[in-house]
Formats: sequence, structure tokens, C-alpha cells
Amino acid sequence: MTQNLLKLDFGAALPEGGSVSRNGSEWDALEEALRDADGWLRSDVNRRRDGFGWLDLPQTDLAEVIEAGQWLAAFDAVIQVGIGGSALGSLMVANALLHPCHNELSRSERGPRLYVADNADPAGTRALWEMVDPSRTALVVVSKSGSTAETMANFLWLWENLKKVLGEERALKQLLVVTDPEKGLLRAFVAEKKCRSLPLPSTVGGRYSVLSAVGLAASAALGVDVTDLQAGARAMDEVLLGAGTMEENPAWLLAGLHWLHFLRGRNMTVLMPYADGLRDFTEWFAQLWGESLGKEGKGSTPLRALGAVDQHSQVQLYTAGPDDKLFTIIDVADRGERLILPSPSDASLAPLAYLGGQEMGAMLQAEARATAATLASLGRPVLWLEIPRLDAFRLGGLVYLYEVVTALTGRLLSVDPFDQPGVEQGKRFTYGLMGRKGFEEEGRKSTEAFARIESRTVSC
Amino acid sequence: MTQNLLKLDFGAALPEGGSVSRNGSEWDALEEALRDADGWLRSDVNRRRDGFGWLDLPQTDLAEVIEAGQWLAAFDAVIQVGIGGSALGSLMVANALLHPCHNELSRSERGPRLYVADNADPAGTRALWEMVDPSRTALVVVSKSGSTAETMANFLWLWENLKKVLGEERALKQLLVVTDPEKGLLRAFVAEKKCRSLPLPSTVGGRYSVLSAVGLAASAALGVDVTDLQAGARAMDEVLLGAGTMEENPAWLLAGLHWLHFLRGRNMTVLMPYADGLRDFTEWFAQLWGESLGKEGKGSTPLRALGAVDQHSQVQLYTAGPDDKLFTIIDVADRGERLILPSPSDASLAPLAYLGGQEMGAMLQAEARATAATLASLGRPVLWLEIPRLDAFRLGGLVYLYEVVTALTGRLLSVDPFDQPGVEQGKRFTYGLMGRKGFEEEGRKSTEAFARIESRTVSC
Repeated sequence: MTQNLLKLDFGAALPEGGSVSRNGSEWDALEEALRDADGWLRSDVNRRRDGFGWLDLPQTDLAEVIEAGQWLAAFDAVIQVGIGGSALGSLMVANALLHPCHNELSRSERGPRLYVADNADPAGTRALWEMVDPSRTALVVVSKSGSTAETMANFLWLWENLKKVLGEERALKQLLVVTDPEKGLLRAFVAEKKCRSLPLPSTVGGRYSVLSAVGLAASAALGVDVTDLQAGARAMDEVLLGAGTMEENPAWLLAGLHWLHFLRGRNMTVLMPYADGLRDFTEWFAQLWGESLGKEGKGSTPLRALGAVDQHSQVQLYTAGPDDKLFTIIDVADRGERLILPSPSDASLAPLAYLGGQEMGAMLQAEARATAATLASLGRPVLWLEIPRLDAFRLGGLVYLYEVVTALTGRLLSVDPFDQPGVEQGKRFTYGLMGRKGFEEEGRKSTEAFARIESRTVSC
Repeated sequence: MTQNLLKLDFGAALPEGGSVSRNGSEWDALEEALRDADGWLRSDVNRRRDGFGWLDLPQTDLAEVIEAGQWLAAFDAVIQVGIGGSALGSLMVANALLHPCHNELSRSERGPRLYVADNADPAGTRALWEMVDPSRTALVVVSKSGSTAETMANFLWLWENLKKVLGEERALKQLLVVTDPEKGLLRAFVAEKKCRSLPLPSTVGGRYSVLSAVGLAASAALGVDVTDLQAGARAMDEVLLGAGTMEENPAWLLAGLHWLHFLRGRNMTVLMPYADGLRDFTEWFAQLWGESLGKEGKGSTPLRALGAVDQHSQVQLYTAGPDDKLFTIIDVADRGERLILPSPSDASLAPLAYLGGQEMGAMLQAEARATAATLASLGRPVLWLEIPRLDAFRLGGLVYLYEVVTALTGRLLSVDPFDQPGVEQGKRFTYGLMGRKGFEEEGRKSTEAFARIESRTVSC
């Protein structure tokens, strides 16, 4: 039984013009590799390990998250303090399901305004602080480890300023901490201050955390139906669990095709939705994909694109540049909104008669199909993914699908899709450059490396 | 004499760990190739040709643009209708030089709110129409050809609705058209309706048009000092004209290094500013680079990144994935805003003591340096570009620099950096799928290509 979650067309995505047939040995080997990878992902032993916890999020009780959302909904503004996986999920959900100018619209109708303090850019942090009334603003600070430098810097500054305005007792009543249920600095802070908190299970990594409080608490406050979002993920989980062949399993297909194209030297994957609401979905995907797979010299680079905007920016390169990309075009069948274009009434605009009577969304879909058809006709591998509507249920399904795809692709590439060892060096260099105690050696090394960068220079 | 525009450090960007020395023959050959390319770009014959007109924009009289800006400034909202080069430049300038929440702030202090109708997404167009008071809103429609489908669709719908509310006579007084001075459908419309217009010189391509009315009219209305922006571009032009060696000429260096790394198989270039205000600069650059160079199977793919945000998304891949990228880190020496981080006063936050007393912008700079140092220490090629401040003058300099770099790189790659033949097929397929007269054959072909995409499918 179909859940009406999505359809995925892959007739023009098979490597080398479709030579991989159902009966061909490569296809069979691929299916076998996916079956193994799926077994690894779903095994009882692994399910309890660090990194695998996101697989259980579709079944987790959301009562606490919904309660927190109701509490947050009474504020005028919510500032989510977090970066990477602690910010991108919330942004993705809000951008997909709220009005594009949510913050400009009256809060009384639509819930609090949402601000995300992710970057440690003083201009950005000052700007959002200027935008809020501290007495009517909640801080939601999100960090699994409680030690992320940018998040802690923003938190320290915002928290200090909130306390200055309101006094500590009142400020504590406007604070929600989302962090590991047991470990870390923020958990200790919660215990010391007895402030409101929600758990991010220790087995769930940041980039796989959107279906937890990390991605859902603020969304719930803004009116997103998080139960429906979770139901979509659960429906996708059921589909994938019940699909034992490549032809039935969209996760196996996407992972397998990404792997085959990577092996053939296509080192980029383009995700190009034709819907403004999915712009931040590509940002969220880019973190999930890049940070999960980019290790040991492997991993394809995710490209964040948006149709039709990038037809006027990147499609020249996509069609006529090197054949080094796999494309996924995402379309939305029913956009909800319908705008019928008027027939031009001015003589000079007569050449636009072909637009008259057209529905703008149908035109956008024609453009999506034309782009996919153009790529296919040039022999560039292209996948077509279509969702019936952009609602919470379908978004939940997409999220879970891409999480599974990423984990399976990691397994096919023989890398650990749940760690991120490559970011440690930069952190240690930063500590060194900031003069943090115990990182003197790192400071020396990074200064040395930077001196080489500066050894040749031009100024103007 | 230095204009204090920028400094560019390239000690860790030389291919193969610096083996290209000043006296090495490859470096000399490169310098010679750049000198030739520069001669091609600056030759009197070419300067009058289509595509080269942007070179004159730093010297163009801005009186008309400034007058239009003053006229626009009296409205509550400006909707710029345009896509690609007719939108990205305005967005880049506004994002760099205005308050990040400009539209949320009182218009009386800061000029009109700015909306950009680029995509043909009915949800987006409806949303921005909901946000404005038609009687206090100006439409700025921008298309050089006057035939861009998305722009014309948005224009037709918005124009019709504006006329419905205000009547045609009044609506015409709220319209500004920016288009070719002589040719095209919008120029005919201006002649028919006698409405306000500004020229986009026919020799200037869309993606090189930001220093014309296309990028400056709306910015001027919002309070950007467009004279200063232009002065920065002019200062950069003077620097480049007077710099006859690789070591003196940042455009030659950037173009030459991009070319060398592309020849060595690095098919991506990452532009990663550490400043929220430069986020859309990377979008603008991505169009300039991708559409100018992606042809004949050549062209490196531009990656849009933002520090420190992408440290928590893409840096794992950048450091540990394949060695297939050239990196440019952009830093801003003086961020204007200073936020001093407080020392943590709660016992549980004691491990954050290292942040206390630090200035947030200095921390962001330490992160930028740490990222560059990490990449360099791993042998990944990295350039360091630093501007003293993010103001109109420096932004103008950066814009002009990257335009010259792109044109020179195109010349080195032996492609025409000013055309975009690869987007035509998609346009014709779209017309075919929309049933436009005269495109029946294209309709048939695109339907056929799409049928192949749909020939294998999975639904759930």
C-alpha cells in the first residue's frame, strides 16, 4: 500500500546510459551490497550504539516537545542558539512549512518570531538582539556536547544580557536547554540552575537530530504540526523496512546510484528542488551528506541548488561543463497556491501571449521537467523525485529517507557515517590561536601553517 | 600607492606545494598567458563588443541611478522583479551593507523594505504580494532581453494586480523598468506606456551588471552609498591596470591559480567568507563563475560556503574528503561591531573561562585562520583574502576584482566568458512543454526525454 509519500524516477540515472539492467550482474551485486548495508544499519547490536539513535526518533514520544512548544508559543520571539545540526534542522522545517515572511507578520496570529544565532559574527548577534524585546523572548540553546565554541559564545553573551535586563531569576524562566541527557557542560548547567531542558539522546548525532527536540521544539511553537512530521518519518521507515529489492526501496536506489556514480568519478551530487520552501532542505542535506561521507579521501560534494533560480546561475555549467555530477531534481506536484497569469493587455507585451492563462506553478513544473529532460538528453545522470505536496507529513518522509540514504552510502563507501574526525584539527587550532590553556602547541603549529599562507602576498 | 582595498596571501595556494617558483618556467609561462589575456580583455577593439561593456561601468555617470534611488526611497516597499543577474547583484549588495533584518525594521528610518521576485514559485510571489501595501509599493522590473520567462510571469501577475488596485495611470507612476536601451519587449513597453526606465547597456551581460542600475537602483533607495561602491570598483580597476606582474596583480594571481588547479583536476572552487554579510556575495560569485566558465566540458564548479557555519557542515569533507578543491577564505579585519564575551559566572560553565574577555569577532577570525591553517597543513591549496572593512568601497573593489578574474580565467580556458549557450535548450524545452506556438518539436523531444526518466520508477 502506498503512503503517497513520493515517487522517484530513475530511468535516466543508471550509469553509462542504462547498461545496468535488472538482470545484469552489477545491479545484482549492488542490491546485495545494499541488503548487507541495510542489515548493518538495522541490526539489534548496532541500534544501541552511538550514532544509530536517530533510527528510533520516528517512534519517540513527542509529549515533552509539544509541551515545550506550547510554552514557547507564548513568547514574542524565540532565539535558537546553535550551529550546524543544532540550527539547520530547525531552519529547514521553518522554511518549508511557515510563511516565507513569518517574522514580518503579526506574531499574534502566527506564533513567535524565530531567530537563529548560529554564526559567531558579532554583527549578526547584535542585530538579532536589537530585534527582540528581552522581556518577551525565549532562548533555546542547543548543543549536544555543550562545548561548541560558537554556540557557547553566543549563549554566554545573550544569557549575560538577558540576565542584565531581567535579573537571573526571571531570565531562567525564559531559557530552554537542549543537550545530552546525562553528560556535558550544559547538562551540568541545567542541574545547577534547575532550568527547563529537553534531552538530545546521546546516541543521536547532531546532523541526524532534526526529528528530536533539536529540530522540533521551536517549530512546534511556530505552529508546525510536529506529530505529522514524525508520522511522515514513521511511514517512510515502514516503507523502507518492507522493501527488499532495489525497485521497491527508494533508499537503496538513491544510495546505490550515488555510490556507482562516485566510483565512476562523479564527485558532486546536486540536489535541486523546484520550490522556494525547500531551499533550506538542501542546506540541511549538504551537512548530512558532506559531514557523514567526506572522510578517508572519499565522499561526493553536495551542491545546494534551487530551481528555477539556478537555471539562471548554475545550469549553464551543469549542462555544458564537465560531466562530474549526479543530479536530483525535486518537484512538488500540488503547490497549494495557484496564480493564473493574465493575458497581456498592452500591445508591446503581445509576445508574452503564451504565458496568458498559464498557472505559475505549472510553468515552474514545466521548467523542472525541461531541466531534467535537457540533462537526460545530454547523457547526464538525473533522478526525478516528486512529492505530492510540501506538508509536514511529506517533509518528515523526505528527511528520514535522506538520513537512511546517507547512512547506507557511508556503509557502501566503507566510512563511518556517524563520526566527524576531520573537524577536530580546526577546533584545536582555534583554541590555540585564542590562547586557550593546554593548546599552546596547537597555537604554535597553526601560526606556523598560517605563516606559510602569508609568505607570499599582494596588497592593493 | 595602496588603496587599502584588500590583501591576498597565496603562499599555500601554489600547485604541488609551492614548486612553482618565481624563476620557474611554469610561473613565467603563466604570467605571459595572463598578460595576453589581459591584453585581450582591455583591447580597444574588444571594449566595444557585446559582453565587454561592464569594464566601463566604474566610469559611468550615476546621476540617473541616484535620482531613481531618491524616487524609490519615498515608497514603503520596493519589489525588484528579476532573476539570475537581475536579482543576485541587488541581493548581494543589500545583504552586505544593510541591517540583516532590514525589512523588519521601521521603514521610516531605513528606507523601503526590499523584496525580490526571482523564482516563479506561486507561493513566493503570493507571499510577497501579501506583505506590501500596493498603494505604497514600487515595482522595479529588470530584464535585459525583456523575455525571461520567470521575470515576465512575475511581472505580468504583479503588474495586473497593481493596475487592478490602483488603476493603470497611478500604477504606471509606481513602475521602473531596467532593460536594454534600444531593443526588446520591455523597451517597447516603456515606449508604449511612457513609464520610467533606466538603461542596462546592451554590451553588459546580466551576470556582469551589478554596477549598473540593475544592482544599484534599489540599493540606492535603501541608503547604500552607490557612489562609494562605484569608487571602489574604479580604484580596483586602476590597481589592475597598473599591475604588470603576477606578484602585483591580484586578478592575474587568482585567475592563474584557478586555471592551474583546474588543469590538475581540482574541479571545484570554494569561496568561504567569514562574515554573514558576504553570504550572498558567494551566490553572486557562483553565477558569475559557473555561467561564464562552464562550457565545452570545462569550468570548475563554484561552492557557496560561509564560515564559521560551514565548519559544522562542509569542513569535514573539505579536510578529509577528496583533494578536488581550491579554497579561498575571505576575512574582514575590522567588523565594526564588537561584542566582548563575559566570563561565565556559573560554576557549571567554568570550562568556558577561555572565552571570557574575548571579542567575538576576534574569535571568528581565529576560526578563519584555523580553518585556513588546517587546510594548508593538509596540503590542500588555500588562498587568504582579507578586506579591511565590509563597506561599500571594499565591496565595489571585490566585485570588480572577481569580474576581471572570471573573464581572465575564461580566456585561459579558451571559452567565451560572456555567453551562455547551454541554457537555451532548457528554455526551448520549457516553451515546448508549455505549448508555446512554434515549439512543438521541442515539446515532443522533451516529452520523449522525460519519458526515459520515468521509464523506471518507485513510489511509496
